[in-house]
Amino acid sequence: MKVKYELISTCGKARLGKLHTNHGTFDTPMFMPVGTQATVKTLSPEELKEVHSGVILSNTYHLWLRPGEDIVHKAGGLHEFMNYDGPILTDSGGYQVFSLAKNKKKDIEEEGVHFKSHLDGKRLFLTPELSIQIQNKLDSDIAMSFDECPPASATHEYMENSVKRTLRWAERGKKVHANPNQSLFGIVQGGYFEDLRKLSAIETVKMDFDGYSIGGVANDDESKENMYLALDYSLPYIPEDKPRYLMGVGDPIDIIEGVIRGIDMFDCVLPTRLARHGHAFTRYGKINVRNAKYKEDFTPLEEGCDCYACKHYTKAYIRHLIVAEETFGARLLSIHNIRFLIRLTEELREAIAKNTLLEYREEFLKNYTGE
Amino acid sequence: MKVKYELISTCGKARLGKLHTNHGTFDTPMFMPVGTQATVKTLSPEELKEVHSGVILSNTYHLWLRPGEDIVHKAGGLHEFMNYDGPILTDSGGYQVFSLAKNKKKDIEEEGVHFKSHLDGKRLFLTPELSIQIQNKLDSDIAMSFDECPPASATHEYMENSVKRTLRWAERGKKVHANPNQSLFGIVQGGYFEDLRKLSAIETVKMDFDGYSIGGVANDDESKENMYLALDYSLPYIPEDKPRYLMGVGDPIDIIEGVIRGIDMFDCVLPTRLARHGHAFTRYGKINVRNAKYKEDFTPLEEGCDCYACKHYTKAYIRHLIVAEETFGARLLSIHNIRFLIRLTEELREAIAKNTLLEYREEFLKNYTGE
Repeated sequence: MKVKYELISTCGKARLGKLHTNHGTFDTPMFMPVGTQATVKTLSPEELKEVHSGVILSNTYHLWLRPGEDIVHKAGGLHEFMNYDGPILTDSGGYQVFSLAKNKKKDIEEEGVHFKSHLDGKRLFLTPELSIQIQNKLDSDIAMSFDECPPASATHEYMENSVKRTLRWAERGKKVHANPNQSLFGIVQGGYFEDLRKLSAIETVKMDFDGYSIGGVANDDESKENMYLALDYSLPYIPEDKPRYLMGVGDPIDIIEGVIRGIDMFDCVLPTRLARHGHAFTRYGKINVRNAKYKEDFTPLEEGCDCYACKHYTKAYIRHLIVAEETFGARLLSIHNIRFLIRLTEELREAIAKNTLLEYREEFLKNYTGE
Repeated sequence: MKVKYELISTCGKARLGKLHTNHGTFDTPMFMPVGTQATVKTLSPEELKEVHSGVILSNTYHLWLRPGEDIVHKAGGLHEFMNYDGPILTDSGGYQVFSLAKNKKKDIEEEGVHFKSHLDGKRLFLTPELSIQIQNKLDSDIAMSFDECPPASATHEYMENSVKRTLRWAERGKKVHANPNQSLFGIVQGGYFEDLRKLSAIETVKMDFDGYSIGGVANDDESKENMYLALDYSLPYIPEDKPRYLMGVGDPIDIIEGVIRGIDMFDCVLPTRLARHGHAFTRYGKINVRNAKYKEDFTPLEEGCDCYACKHYTKAYIRHLIVAEETFGARLLSIHNIRFLIRLTEELREAIAKNTLLEYREEFLKNYTGE
């Protein structure tokens, strides 16, 4: 079965919906925790359920290198391999090829991309077909097309050629896709050029994918205004009966702005990465629990939060664990940070249902930025 | 309330019993997981319950340095601080002072020990009184006397002086002990000298502690035969109505031999340390899951094991996590290894009850050593 998007209600362009998959249904808008190497860093599958994670993302590039898609396939697919029975989306590896190989030589040709492994420097060649074949074997619920992720600073000429190549790659990937239980999403690129976003969206939609992503907006060097423009340029051309996924975005404010523009799904390594560095999201902004002022702070990370970390542990204890380099500290912060973003999407869903989305944004921003 | 030992039955010198504490009762013989820095590495308190951990150990030296006993005290004691409501034993810091300061200058005088912090090289001075005062504030269920841990190679002359100093230190610690809810154990030292073990045991018992430990047998340079001799020299002088704790010992064979000689409690960092290096206990000996032969091994770490890791995950997946340096791998191996040692003590208790302890040892050794 392919995924099926069910639209429940709207508030402006924002959509309240459900995505039905072979591994259960999740509500949208939804934040997806990232399980790069077939594990969401420091969390068990049971803990993912506890934070009400509806769907997770795993990385094709990483699993291709380690342990290899054949081992995952022999294990019975990614769900069996990692003991997670909820929906899983795999990316195409495109983003990793372009970002991890950033400072190394990479060579893009029509056929695919030559690059070096970030693990051992081994020369590798990834093509649109291979990406899809790997994902077929991983047996995720949703696979992504293989795309080029050009830097935000690319010229119009470069970006136009890139968008057209990504369209040809999408076509090639779709042709070899052979897992009847796996859906395939297309990716809209085009940087910050209105004409190219439009071209990319219209041509990608013509190929009739099971869902659509907005790519190329999660680079470090991008401004938020540009990100929102890229959404405004792309989304009018995406059919209403398909899910819309904004790739690599997990900043709370960006999630709100994405939802207001009509996005259904988000993913980002931010909550687990912040956790490893001792940071926690709170509705009054991010805090660094390493800060000495939390030494004797026996209150939870965030008052009122319903997560396991906030129900049972204090800032003083979590600070101690982080300072002492105990992994249980990163685990507690990861649980809290992921729950924070999922709770944010729950509140956004509620605001859509009640038609109070703009008021919600105003209130959230006031608290979060302190302005 | 002080701990109360209840003897249920014996098999030779081996004892089946219960230790009643302010935070619940646990069966003995029992293996205690080590939570050095107020956390058993990679495990949650709920996971400790799941592996049927009856009591855990935490380290006074480490908590003194970080976060400091005053912070733990302000949090409401160690149980509150780390969200663990089962029995907790704290060591005295003596072992750490002598082992972590091993390659640095340390200076033992009658008053206490001068040494340098393993964290920042800061000069510190730990005395028997201070050790007990720190433990009083930590508010563990069981505190340990501050002892000297001389190397196994010490001469009879050195060891005799050391044993006598440890007796004076025990006396001094007992005098300042001021937490009515905390029990205090004495420690028998004396290396491998029969006369000194006897002297140490008789004089320590005269002070009337709530329980007794055998120390000085967990050094790297000791032979197992010597360890067993030290037990045989010490245990005849320990009263039957008090618990007996063999410090720092967690090798499965040593646990069996200790139980046969009448030991009730064991602790060791071995199960979590092995886990971090990718090793798992099994009844057929230790395995290294990094080994390439487990790449496609979709069976659990140990067939028949009832732990969370064995119920849900394969060697292939855990190998992948360890190779990819994902902390969830160390967590699964830690859960398994701790459960393995606790299951061992459960089986030993059953064998004592059925009077089949020597048969159990024979069967275990045959499987474990393959001989």
